[in-house]
Amino acid sequence: MEWQAYLDREQDRFVGELIDLVKIPSISAKPEHADDVAAAGEWVASKLKSIGIENVAVMPTAGHPVVYGDWLHAPEGSPTIMIYGHFDVQPAEPMELWTKPPFEPEIRDGLLYGRGASDDKGGMMVPIVAVEALMATTGRLPVNVKFFFEGQEEIASPDLPPFVEENRERLAADMIFSADGLQWDADTPQLIMGLKGIVSLEVVVTGPDADQHSGLRGAGIANPAMGLAQVLATMKSPDGRVTVEGFYDDVEPLSEQDRQAIARVPFDEATFLAETGAPAAVGEPGFSTLERLWARPTLDVNGLTSGWQGAGTKTIVPAVASAKITCRLVADQSPERIFDLIRDHVERVLPEGLRAEVNKLPGRGDPLLVPHGHNATAVAATVLEEVYGKTPYQTRVGGSIPVMNTLLEVLGVHPVMFGFQHGDEKMHSPNEFFRLSAFRRGQTAYVRLLESLAV
Amino acid sequence: MEWQAYLDREQDRFVGELIDLVKIPSISAKPEHADDVAAAGEWVASKLKSIGIENVAVMPTAGHPVVYGDWLHAPEGSPTIMIYGHFDVQPAEPMELWTKPPFEPEIRDGLLYGRGASDDKGGMMVPIVAVEALMATTGRLPVNVKFFFEGQEEIASPDLPPFVEENRERLAADMIFSADGLQWDADTPQLIMGLKGIVSLEVVVTGPDADQHSGLRGAGIANPAMGLAQVLATMKSPDGRVTVEGFYDDVEPLSEQDRQAIARVPFDEATFLAETGAPAAVGEPGFSTLERLWARPTLDVNGLTSGWQGAGTKTIVPAVASAKITCRLVADQSPERIFDLIRDHVERVLPEGLRAEVNKLPGRGDPLLVPHGHNATAVAATVLEEVYGKTPYQTRVGGSIPVMNTLLEVLGVHPVMFGFQHGDEKMHSPNEFFRLSAFRRGQTAYVRLLESLAV
Repeated sequence: MEWQAYLDREQDRFVGELIDLVKIPSISAKPEHADDVAAAGEWVASKLKSIGIENVAVMPTAGHPVVYGDWLHAPEGSPTIMIYGHFDVQPAEPMELWTKPPFEPEIRDGLLYGRGASDDKGGMMVPIVAVEALMATTGRLPVNVKFFFEGQEEIASPDLPPFVEENRERLAADMIFSADGLQWDADTPQLIMGLKGIVSLEVVVTGPDADQHSGLRGAGIANPAMGLAQVLATMKSPDGRVTVEGFYDDVEPLSEQDRQAIARVPFDEATFLAETGAPAAVGEPGFSTLERLWARPTLDVNGLTSGWQGAGTKTIVPAVASAKITCRLVADQSPERIFDLIRDHVERVLPEGLRAEVNKLPGRGDPLLVPHGHNATAVAATVLEEVYGKTPYQTRVGGSIPVMNTLLEVLGVHPVMFGFQHGDEKMHSPNEFFRLSAFRRGQTAYVRLLESLAV
Repeated sequence: MEWQAYLDREQDRFVGELIDLVKIPSISAKPEHADDVAAAGEWVASKLKSIGIENVAVMPTAGHPVVYGDWLHAPEGSPTIMIYGHFDVQPAEPMELWTKPPFEPEIRDGLLYGRGASDDKGGMMVPIVAVEALMATTGRLPVNVKFFFEGQEEIASPDLPPFVEENRERLAADMIFSADGLQWDADTPQLIMGLKGIVSLEVVVTGPDADQHSGLRGAGIANPAMGLAQVLATMKSPDGRVTVEGFYDDVEPLSEQDRQAIARVPFDEATFLAETGAPAAVGEPGFSTLERLWARPTLDVNGLTSGWQGAGTKTIVPAVASAKITCRLVADQSPERIFDLIRDHVERVLPEGLRAEVNKLPGRGDPLLVPHGHNATAVAATVLEEVYGKTPYQTRVGGSIPVMNTLLEVLGVHPVMFGFQHGDEKMHSPNEFFRLSAFRRGQTAYVRLLESLAV
């Protein structure tokens, strides 16, 4: 049987296996779900073993585990390919906005709904079942393959740098393909030439040592919730420019060539607004939306917490107010320097009568740009053009995958994003879904990729 | 037996009864505690019946119930006195800051700890047991007494105006004394000559229709959490002055005489800071802390909610951000006009790409000032001087008791604050307590008050 026929015949089973994997609530950000992350890792390891992958191991890190497995019997001179993905997922809140519970996946109209269905459980199953098809129909693979799947991508892979360092030889590869990537749309492939970096932190403003009666005490002391708002408001102008002093100092300006390349990619603002539900596309002045999304740094408040959040009113001056913040960074900004700038900024602008702390949170990554003329990227381009019948756009992504930097720095190989998810699939939001058509097409692409690399 | 001896002999039982009442978690702000508020009302009604009060009734309102009871057999020509209090309490959060659970009251060093021990379950038990002592030792009262206790003071008595209106005849009184009041300190009485008004609202800022991936979408849309911070920051300058346009327009300036009266009252800023734990006493420039607390309006953020509030990071642009706000008002500010000013202000300053709603919350009250030369206040002054051996200070309170305005407006009687709580008793905060010494002294004061009013 040919691998294409095998993939067609077994597709329903593959979808069922993906559903089983999505059912595991492997939320890496929540300590109480650590066992679920481990369970998802065990599930993946078991699947790898079942298709003939060797040396499969669930390997501990200081945090969530890693799953490794390989098949290294290709003819002498064949390249060794690493395939990367992750089996952890984002938290599912706000739960009330899900049409169906996030960990009870179901298919509607050819779309598989569930937290992680797209990012990245669906994505990582694509190369696994592609390899299964080759192994089942030919008993071998065209190249040496190493699978490297992790369980902490959604918290920015804090324990991966030492892990990759310590397992440098085991992980060594000639090329790295990441199954945590996106295509432009259901019909159009893309080559992702850049990812943003990220730095994560929280600002905690305190005043009184307990909540105070706003009538009896409030007028005499500073209010931490108002103080936090005042501090945050100094970080970004209402028109969208970040106003933390020095924030843009290390940003490499967009060249005219860069801007033309971005302008060649079709972008429909009306669709973008319909997908987000936002009333307008706004952001840093002087740049198009696509330039902002791909090539300009941002500062976002991800969450606010203070005082009374229940029904009605509680007449207090809260003791504490805090904000979670992430900045998306572009070359050549450094997460450490941006953190320092924000910490210094908070100290400078904090109103009298309050105290503030700025704490690092897990989640840091350098920005990443793929060099032009990169070998693995060229192979990926050929396969994508064959599978989609179109030349891929050269794009960037506003998201961050810190482990990509780790792989580049430690293994000396520039990873290629080779994933079949799409930006409209509500990753990180309620009602996340994955297109089953892309699941199937990605499998063909991965088989063709491995075949193309054979000596 | 004299009433003093009776009070001394029965004091332990009275404290036990107060403990029983504090055990009922009658949190009026939380719908799930509505039955507990009603249970507290039933407890109070039962107590009133047991001491010989007549026409006791738990009366429904559109929200939490009211408890009424009277004894109207004083000699012809005797005045009719209303005694007011409330049996509902503030929410107990943040729970983790309580040394012992808030609804498991216990006595330590002569202080009774528990949510509501001071505000106002302890306060309202004072006149009840004072009346019990008179009824038990003399079989009668020196004047006609009407008890009027409510279960929604902590949510600003939203259903009391129509209730008082509909029960105008039943509630008619010559003088009104509120057992929800404060003395200056454990040794010094005060006459409270003013209360602040209040208006309660929330600002809800929305952007995208669901949380968005901050990397894939964030740079292209406005962030509701940042937008909320920017809106709030325009409402108050970092030095503490409210900057909502028109906010101070209706404020009656403090006269030189007012400022001198306030300056005569001792106020120790170091103690104030030690009690609050705040690093500095700050507020509207140009006024002393006591002037700010008593006679200047405020705008406070009571709570903030947006996006991810759990451990670690969630890389989203949240769909919604909201702030709960209360303003404490002084004569002649109107809650309705201040609400309108804030709503207009939010519309004016909202950054592009966001939507905002400003919603009224339960909790409104006009500011209140006691007229100089008021009859019941003069009687209260005499009794307080006798019981404490000191001339009471003439003070104001930054808190708000909207029902006081209702009683004034509907019944035409100016209520007198005659309560024996103290400002340091962590009302509305964790580890609220009530001084048992004040519980006992207040009982003597209430008996003397009623005796003083006899014809």
